[in-house]
Amino acid sequence: MSDLARFSINQMTVKQLSMPELVDACVELGVPGVGLWREPVQSYGLEETAKLIMDTGLTVTTLCRGGFFTAIDPQERSRALTDNRRAIEEAARLGTDTLVLVSGGLPPGSKDLHGARERIADALGELGPYAERHGVRLAIEPLHPMYAADRCVVSTLSQALDLAERFPAEQVGVAVDTYHIWWDDTAPAQIARAGATGRIHTFQLADWTTPLPKGVLDGRGQIGNGAIDMREWKGHVEAAGYTGPIEVELFNEELWARDGREVLAETTARFVEHVIR
Amino acid sequence: MSDLARFSINQMTVKQLSMPELVDACVELGVPGVGLWREPVQSYGLEETAKLIMDTGLTVTTLCRGGFFTAIDPQERSRALTDNRRAIEEAARLGTDTLVLVSGGLPPGSKDLHGARERIADALGELGPYAERHGVRLAIEPLHPMYAADRCVVSTLSQALDLAERFPAEQVGVAVDTYHIWWDDTAPAQIARAGATGRIHTFQLADWTTPLPKGVLDGRGQIGNGAIDMREWKGHVEAAGYTGPIEVELFNEELWARDGREVLAETTARFVEHVIR
Repeated sequence: MSDLARFSINQMTVKQLSMPELVDACVELGVPGVGLWREPVQSYGLEETAKLIMDTGLTVTTLCRGGFFTAIDPQERSRALTDNRRAIEEAARLGTDTLVLVSGGLPPGSKDLHGARERIADALGELGPYAERHGVRLAIEPLHPMYAADRCVVSTLSQALDLAERFPAEQVGVAVDTYHIWWDDTAPAQIARAGATGRIHTFQLADWTTPLPKGVLDGRGQIGNGAIDMREWKGHVEAAGYTGPIEVELFNEELWARDGREVLAETTARFVEHVIR
Repeated sequence: MSDLARFSINQMTVKQLSMPELVDACVELGVPGVGLWREPVQSYGLEETAKLIMDTGLTVTTLCRGGFFTAIDPQERSRALTDNRRAIEEAARLGTDTLVLVSGGLPPGSKDLHGARERIADALGELGPYAERHGVRLAIEPLHPMYAADRCVVSTLSQALDLAERFPAEQVGVAVDTYHIWWDDTAPAQIARAGATGRIHTFQLADWTTPLPKGVLDGRGQIGNGAIDMREWKGHVEAAGYTGPIEVELFNEELWARDGREVLAETTARFVEHVIR
């Protein structure tokens, strides 16, 4: 198997590239998979993106992202469900079987983490069967606890699995992303738990570098630049039976300021150096 | 019991106040306890501080901080142990029974969280008996997982208790700080675990506000301004048998830019409003 056989580049890593530039660069560098985001797909056009991807034989490993299920207001909840049904349809059209979910933070003024997590379960109950009918699995992504208030009240794999296991694995599983879980000594056991029921729906990599930037959104480090032992986490998901794509998803102002092709080439080389060999 | 009977102001919250200003403001506002930091104590003088505090009848609830045990280099480790023995002596001289420990991050270039945590255990084994002879208990403070790389590899109460329980409770316990654990749905059970063996050595409050500032050190929110339900966490520690001081420890550039007495008065009022009544 080639060094890059399981490699997928998440589009956000090189968001300075247009959709055709991204596809061209992947073909040129031998990158077989891409993780796409809804906004650039919609900008380029869903049908146009699907055609572009299919023409080149690239695999769409995930679509990011659905979610944001924690609103209390009924109209807002209804809008979120409608939008997530559309995301499921888009994932199916793009030929990926995985829609990544970022669950949402606390509603303004609320301090009720438990209630917010329950509302996520309610939404999954409505969306799971719809996703399955479209051949799409929902992947709950636990986000690092530093996002618990304003972005995602699901902070650990354990919490994500507590939610996912209420539903069939064909409908709901989890996203394992090193950036969010690397500090957690219980995560390896939770990866095993996820693997045992076929719920590792995607495996993503980013490295942990400090200092964190203001707002802590755009400081995900290039593979090899930070504190995370990528081989160790690859070992955990493989021991749990995961043999699927390995997607590198970096949000990083410094990388975005550089030439996108150069960043993709660098990321590809880092993947081989720090993950595969 | 008065509303302020259990209130303690951590010195860092109002670091713009000199030691005599802090003591005066506490006496004036009826604040019975203070948590001190080693650097301002050393600046004012250990003996001078001890005398100032004793003359006013204030209680020193904690001394912050010892720790930084994760170095691999033997000389650096030796220096850390020497410094921590001095911190224990200072705590005893100031009349507090609790030295708060921030354990330290990963050594430069290391990705080995497990090894770093083991080195903390080694240090505790050396320091615990020394602390006990001085009537001082060591309180391992789990810091929020966003500090795992560069400040503290102990990220959860569970990890802190796994370390503490290797030693007698009279030597080593934990610091429960809402800022660091509020997102963790397993923390209430870990507080019960800590209480059952008498290991809740201090209970500290800070609120979670966003966006986090660059470097994420100085964004701890004033009580009531953020996402944390303070009464709920007070309930957890009380259900676990903790009846000791409740210390408010805020690192916040905006608070530091204001008049220190005004901030202390505001913090006292917030404590009554959001914690006691």
